[in-house]
Amino acid sequence: MNSDSVKIPQATAKRLPLYYRFIQNLHSSGKQRVSSAELSEAVKVDSATIRRDFSYFGALGKKGYGYNVSYLLSFFRKTLDQDEVTNVALIGVGNLGTAFLNYNFLKNNNTKILVAFDVEESKVGTIIGEVPIYHMDQLEETLAQLKVPVAILTIPQSAAQSITDRLVQANIKGILNFTPARLNVPSAIRVHHIDLAIELQSLVYFLKNYPD
Amino acid sequence: MNSDSVKIPQATAKRLPLYYRFIQNLHSSGKQRVSSAELSEAVKVDSATIRRDFSYFGALGKKGYGYNVSYLLSFFRKTLDQDEVTNVALIGVGNLGTAFLNYNFLKNNNTKILVAFDVEESKVGTIIGEVPIYHMDQLEETLAQLKVPVAILTIPQSAAQSITDRLVQANIKGILNFTPARLNVPSAIRVHHIDLAIELQSLVYFLKNYPD
Repeated sequence: MNSDSVKIPQATAKRLPLYYRFIQNLHSSGKQRVSSAELSEAVKVDSATIRRDFSYFGALGKKGYGYNVSYLLSFFRKTLDQDEVTNVALIGVGNLGTAFLNYNFLKNNNTKILVAFDVEESKVGTIIGEVPIYHMDQLEETLAQLKVPVAILTIPQSAAQSITDRLVQANIKGILNFTPARLNVPSAIRVHHIDLAIELQSLVYFLKNYPD
Repeated sequence: MNSDSVKIPQATAKRLPLYYRFIQNLHSSGKQRVSSAELSEAVKVDSATIRRDFSYFGALGKKGYGYNVSYLLSFFRKTLDQDEVTNVALIGVGNLGTAFLNYNFLKNNNTKILVAFDVEESKVGTIIGEVPIYHMDQLEETLAQLKVPVAILTIPQSAAQSITDRLVQANIKGILNFTPARLNVPSAIRVHHIDLAIELQSLVYFLKNYPD
């Protein structure tokens, strides 16, 4: 997708990978059409939202027929640039980092963890989930060679900002931050933040205040 | 907070734990007041949104002074029921589950992982991060004894729905789902879904389509 493509709302953009994965599964199972009600049930997004999301892409379902699965699949694949794999670096091979390495991202996605970094000598030089682990001292040099645009941050909070500064220097464009730290980065760098403690706290808050 | 309290928008509710943690840190460091601009810089939420969020709680800053930190802290603590700890069960002690157990949730939060479950005999009977690990066969019995309302799901996707059905039978009210599976639950059960692959894919999509 080119940068001059039509901009869709960010909330819609966030649901795209979700739609894509489900449509991919439908296609694999030989299904040829799907209604917005079925989609809604499967991806847990209300069907009015699905119809509005799809309308941004000009994908219009037919009444009584729904959407054509092959069309949707080729459409989402083009939109998400599924044929172009984005390389990712993982920083910090603790339990959370190891979980990522063992997770087969490429199976359903357009991202691949190409390289991982840690400070612990016993981990350096080993391979987990087909991903080689380098020492943090080799960070700048290795990222420059491999031209990796995205990093997953699974390091202790205390090291988060200093490592982030090094990632910015190494021309990383996006960071998926799993530490509790709020990172300071130049405005051109995109950070998505997933704080596990806050996710849990948020669920508890909703349970207490929005009982069904 | 009682269920008859004023309902605030869900988007605002989601930011509450974030505000709380930052205000707590400010208070610990002896700071007595904070402006919405400082808050904005720290928590990476724009200051207009912060002012709107705070207005739902009747917490109104004064021009040229900002917000009183002690007031905000006691206010958020009351709102978030920080004095009341919610017990949590962790299902699946792989790498991701182990990362959760080693994470000290209680340090900044009102949640505590009380018990964990796994099918692997070598893990059953051990303790990780002060949390005892039980066999999955003991799930219903143990949850009934401990009256745990929340579960974190860190198991393989293939087991996700069947274990969820057992959690629902065991009176779990909320599930933090880290598997790629979209879970079917009765409408009274709240599920928050964090799909690591989709989070990564979403970041990549934004980098390609919303370049700064």
